[in-house]
Amino acid sequence: MSNTIDHPPLHDEQTRREQALTETVVASFDGTPDARLKQLMQSLTRHLHAFVRELRLTEDEWNTAIGFLTDVGHITDDRRQEFILLSDVFGVSMQTVTVNNEADADATEATVFGPFFVEDSPSIELGGDIAGGASGQPCWVEGTVTSTDGTPIAGAHIEVWEADEAGFYDVQYDGTELAGRANLTADSAGCYFFWGLTPTPYPIPHDGPVGRMLAATNRSPYRASHLHFKVSAPGHRTLVTHIFVRGDELLGSDSVFGVRESLIAEFTEHSSATPTPDGRAIGDRSWTSTRFDIVLAPTRAKTDSHSERHR
Amino acid sequence: MSNTIDHPPLHDEQTRREQALTETVVASFDGTPDARLKQLMQSLTRHLHAFVRELRLTEDEWNTAIGFLTDVGHITDDRRQEFILLSDVFGVSMQTVTVNNEADADATEATVFGPFFVEDSPSIELGGDIAGGASGQPCWVEGTVTSTDGTPIAGAHIEVWEADEAGFYDVQYDGTELAGRANLTADSAGCYFFWGLTPTPYPIPHDGPVGRMLAATNRSPYRASHLHFKVSAPGHRTLVTHIFVRGDELLGSDSVFGVRESLIAEFTEHSSATPTPDGRAIGDRSWTSTRFDIVLAPTRAKTDSHSERHR
Repeated sequence: MSNTIDHPPLHDEQTRREQALTETVVASFDGTPDARLKQLMQSLTRHLHAFVRELRLTEDEWNTAIGFLTDVGHITDDRRQEFILLSDVFGVSMQTVTVNNEADADATEATVFGPFFVEDSPSIELGGDIAGGASGQPCWVEGTVTSTDGTPIAGAHIEVWEADEAGFYDVQYDGTELAGRANLTADSAGCYFFWGLTPTPYPIPHDGPVGRMLAATNRSPYRASHLHFKVSAPGHRTLVTHIFVRGDELLGSDSVFGVRESLIAEFTEHSSATPTPDGRAIGDRSWTSTRFDIVLAPTRAKTDSHSERHR
Repeated sequence: MSNTIDHPPLHDEQTRREQALTETVVASFDGTPDARLKQLMQSLTRHLHAFVRELRLTEDEWNTAIGFLTDVGHITDDRRQEFILLSDVFGVSMQTVTVNNEADADATEATVFGPFFVEDSPSIELGGDIAGGASGQPCWVEGTVTSTDGTPIAGAHIEVWEADEAGFYDVQYDGTELAGRANLTADSAGCYFFWGLTPTPYPIPHDGPVGRMLAATNRSPYRASHLHFKVSAPGHRTLVTHIFVRGDELLGSDSVFGVRESLIAEFTEHSSATPTPDGRAIGDRSWTSTRFDIVLAPTRAKTDSHSERHR
């Protein structure tokens, strides 16, 4: 990576000293028994040093960084994970997801997992309601689960979870009631359908150091409205993703960079007079409907994955 | 920075997704009001993303990193700064010092400041003793302070501090007694001399996450033996440095990468029978002597600094 700041050319002796220091630190990890750990430490060293050198980081800036990380550490506890937020707002979480879910034909794209998944969600039948008391506009969600070759995946396991219309997940409330989440099973044709809530936007926690960083950089803490999916089936890569709402003004500024064009779905508004797809009576409320067809990538042996895709 | 790990070539669509994500995150900082903060955030984004992409960081590794940083945050308090230790053992502190103290003719090289400097050290006369009750072998230290053009710097202000023979600084003990530190003033010829202690090695705190990282990478937590100096004079760049002990077996593995060849001094051993330079009676103890001639860089206007040095 080239020099990115306006700085006069360095004296040769200065360049020699900086390069020699980096090489000394890299070499200090040569004796690491675990080959992968050695690789991680040495690459991290090179990037950290390149950052300091390219930016000509001042000692005041270094002090500010130490203080910032200290604050991030101190606000983090069992309920608040500010380091994950920090990773999220730098897009590091999303880049890690991207690297670990490589493009494979038209397999549905993955996005960030987020902190609100719960293992023991309620099981519902196809057509059931995930709300469980969570407030919001009813939303009919339907689609198919297929493999990249078009074969329906009968019995695919689907977990869905989302915030209520106030922008909070069940686990953010006091109490232990699960709401706005469920798991269900696709039918023999790979079809699934359920009642959820029309997704609404909410901010990531922004009363801490990460929030102050977002404010200092004129960035919004808001996440674009979304509904989480985790879809698994034997012989296929587990997919963790969201669907987003076409027309949401936050699509271009999602604070954790989870939005993918391919994950934006139409949410069609219906008046209370419109009959629901399953005939369910939902009173005098308006509702929405959306469709999300899910394509899972087959599990491939690691060493074959690229050559197969290149055929 | 090129790909550093053995990974098959990426599918074009995968490369496009990864690059697009990085550019989206970089662009999210475009509205940062402070130009320098914008530069820092955007460069940091590029390096973090390059690290994740080059290493094909796994989600397990990302989780381990989050857990590690959480541990570093939780052990950090008013007396223990594990983030600084982390910066130190990656050579980031030393690289920051290097970047901020650019080579200038034969000006003495800077090294890490360390956490044990105290503002209100005792003032001593030339020839005085800094020990103040700290245990260790007496060491006569003398030298000159000159400017890069050879002119002696009369009245240069010198702060010195060091660990005792047990490897601890005064501030690491309970109690408020200052020991093993002092400040003094060079004479009209720029000469200085004082009694200190022969430096001894000690480990950085290694009972926390940084210590576990050093153990996992087969690295020693020990610092090479050293004596700290901070030297200032009007019209000159303040120098923060150490002297190290020639022959110390830790010179090649200093845990914070502070050693510079130019900072390694001869410490000559003397028997108790050898008369001391100032005639002081030190009983039946052996002692050492060393010489450290200090050269300060003149303060230069920031924009001139490089062109001057290139003449």
